[in-house]
Amino acid sequence: MDTSCESSGRPTHPAGFFADESDLSERFPGHDSIDFPVAVVLPAGGSGERMGLATPKQFCTVFNRPLISYTIQAFERISWIENIVVVVAKESLHLMMDIIHKFCHKKVKVLLGGSSRHRSIFNGLQAFGEMPDGKSLRKPKVVIIHDAVRPFVEEDFLLRITIAAKEQGASGAIRPLVSTVIATTSEGYIDHSLERAKYRASEMPQGFVYDIIYQAYQQCSESDFEFGTECLHLALQYCGTNAKLIEGPPALWKVTYKKDLFAAESVIKDFLSQACVITTVCAESAELAHRFQKSLGARSMQVDVISGSFGNNQPLVSKTWNFIHITANIACLAEISRTVKTLHEAGQALLYPAVLILVHFSVLPHSSLTERMGQLGAIRHLAMEAKHRNILLYAILLNHNENAEQWEETVESASEITTALVKDRNPALAGQLLVA
Amino acid sequence: MDTSCESSGRPTHPAGFFADESDLSERFPGHDSIDFPVAVVLPAGGSGERMGLATPKQFCTVFNRPLISYTIQAFERISWIENIVVVVAKESLHLMMDIIHKFCHKKVKVLLGGSSRHRSIFNGLQAFGEMPDGKSLRKPKVVIIHDAVRPFVEEDFLLRITIAAKEQGASGAIRPLVSTVIATTSEGYIDHSLERAKYRASEMPQGFVYDIIYQAYQQCSESDFEFGTECLHLALQYCGTNAKLIEGPPALWKVTYKKDLFAAESVIKDFLSQACVITTVCAESAELAHRFQKSLGARSMQVDVISGSFGNNQPLVSKTWNFIHITANIACLAEISRTVKTLHEAGQALLYPAVLILVHFSVLPHSSLTERMGQLGAIRHLAMEAKHRNILLYAILLNHNENAEQWEETVESASEITTALVKDRNPALAGQLLVA
Repeated sequence: MDTSCESSGRPTHPAGFFADESDLSERFPGHDSIDFPVAVVLPAGGSGERMGLATPKQFCTVFNRPLISYTIQAFERISWIENIVVVVAKESLHLMMDIIHKFCHKKVKVLLGGSSRHRSIFNGLQAFGEMPDGKSLRKPKVVIIHDAVRPFVEEDFLLRITIAAKEQGASGAIRPLVSTVIATTSEGYIDHSLERAKYRASEMPQGFVYDIIYQAYQQCSESDFEFGTECLHLALQYCGTNAKLIEGPPALWKVTYKKDLFAAESVIKDFLSQACVITTVCAESAELAHRFQKSLGARSMQVDVISGSFGNNQPLVSKTWNFIHITANIACLAEISRTVKTLHEAGQALLYPAVLILVHFSVLPHSSLTERMGQLGAIRHLAMEAKHRNILLYAILLNHNENAEQWEETVESASEITTALVKDRNPALAGQLLVA
Repeated sequence: MDTSCESSGRPTHPAGFFADESDLSERFPGHDSIDFPVAVVLPAGGSGERMGLATPKQFCTVFNRPLISYTIQAFERISWIENIVVVVAKESLHLMMDIIHKFCHKKVKVLLGGSSRHRSIFNGLQAFGEMPDGKSLRKPKVVIIHDAVRPFVEEDFLLRITIAAKEQGASGAIRPLVSTVIATTSEGYIDHSLERAKYRASEMPQGFVYDIIYQAYQQCSESDFEFGTECLHLALQYCGTNAKLIEGPPALWKVTYKKDLFAAESVIKDFLSQACVITTVCAESAELAHRFQKSLGARSMQVDVISGSFGNNQPLVSKTWNFIHITANIACLAEISRTVKTLHEAGQALLYPAVLILVHFSVLPHSSLTERMGQLGAIRHLAMEAKHRNILLYAILLNHNENAEQWEETVESASEITTALVKDRNPALAGQLLVA
């Protein structure tokens, strides 16, 4: 992938994973009232032992992008979050700096962690005081502490955590227990089982008034630093601040095992399902575009149709990672090439691979197959170039059929292939010409 | 998919998901001593509300096969398990019977459940006593109770649960807690948090001496039936039997949310990565086959090479769901057609879609593209037929290049495409001719 950020901007607020967050201020009257500084601390020093992988899980990649970059992005896109402090182990420092650079993260400061999770968080909190290098960040009113391996946190939930923390001093996400919890004897038998309704799993994010959590860490013992698991507990013990617990959405899950990484990949793929169909002005193209829109819509893809070029559709394009070019003109590769350039310059493929599908249909029933196949070389060449820019280019060929029923079948088949390419997003098939 | 089971057998013991279980008797001396009857009860009456899906999660499909069929298969393949009693809600009865028929499950009895999980389990246990219809199953010494939505349970762990249940009266799987557990006040604040090391998540499977769990259910109260969650707790309370707790592998996870269904699909895809390369006797084919073996091996696929036809390789074939036919002869479609027939008759694609890739390479540098493209129609036709039998046929074209370096690149590209097709297993691309 091209790693140059300077030459390419990128969408300022790529959409969140689950919710349409455009109407937050209506749903949460508090939204406008975040008129105090908010920062985030992301401890990311874990070793990923549970995963059974050599790479710590926060650095495992989905679409060649480490999980921690997704988590950073989840905070970075939120306007009222000022700073994100990432705390890493010494051996991951270079890798982390590369990630920041490659994916153009802007609000991030990277610090070295301590020997335990709590020491790392405390190091992170100290970034807002006086730093030895004199470079300190503005002290936040509220600090959110989150896990690097929970990439799907949404703005609306962060807002609730932040407001509750401001009002109550501390707040934390909880979830219902999935399994019954039992106390065990040292010999491996049941001591007793807990009444599920009275307990909750304590999850992340947690929010704190900065001064409270900072004071708690200043007072806490070696044993707390070494063996404690809960920041909420420290705030309670040392500052008498009892956290407001807020039930979070299922999306707060933590990538813990290898199967969770699979799930994260699928969730991200699922999220990238909105498409934009671009047609030329000819009537046949436009008609095919609308058939595509309908057929892909029936396959749960949200599809917009643009005639001509992107033009004034920038806001639409910035929410889309799939582009379908419909054309009857085989000499359209120059146009595709322009689209690749536009997407690249807009930084559209910086965070996720963009999919670009050239749908070519012939109105002449028996135009030369050989001639069209000759284009394959050119398509493959362009696809290889595009791939370096994280844009996956595929081509689909439709033979127009006078028979309405057969034509309907061909369009359905093309739409099925399109859905497959978008869903799988497999770079190994870039440059292929598929026949509908 | 062809649903006729009568005409097609299937591998008696499809491999387990994670472990090579062939040497179980060495690792577990108890293996041979399972000389007592063992049965399974699978309560499957849940509604899947947490999933946010219309279909109860045990009936959600992966590769067009409901999750519960994977779970049934996990038990069915184990020789020392006699019977599997599946307990379903009335509205799922027909669906369940269809699943049993379609996927040729043999050891299963389906019963109607009660209004709660405990009532359903008790109904299941009664299948081994006198049934109203006079059809009772042999009473087991040990009964294993499991969740329909934990499809990845392995034989070695079931063996440990079974032996411990026989010896101690009851046994159950536990896992470390992933999150801190907190007791909450009614106002939504922390009451106290639990010391993580003293607690475990109680998971499934659980094993019981049949008479013990049956007696416990006979004695238990309406409140237990309605609100109880743990069978282990009933055995302790009513029979004084304290279960032996055994730490299970991560694979015991439960499909609870939509993202878990994504994960299940990926785990299954990951499991189906062993391939069998079939070559003709010609030297070029054999050479290419070995290059493929090496290159796919580097992509974490385990690959065996067979020369000629399946012949005596039945044991190998029965563990494989990916077949790669290498040929220089374009007139090989008859052979591919025979392979489709053989796989179908062996029931190889009954449980998972099989992938069959025709890798065609030309030693003549400039053989006619048009001629080869003419074959595309025939390949597509055959692919459509194969798809009805749950066999996904794709073709890859390689142009042999005298230049060693370029040929190396072409082979690498073919191997990359093969890996993509095997990994994605996407039926929408069946019948496509891809160019390496």
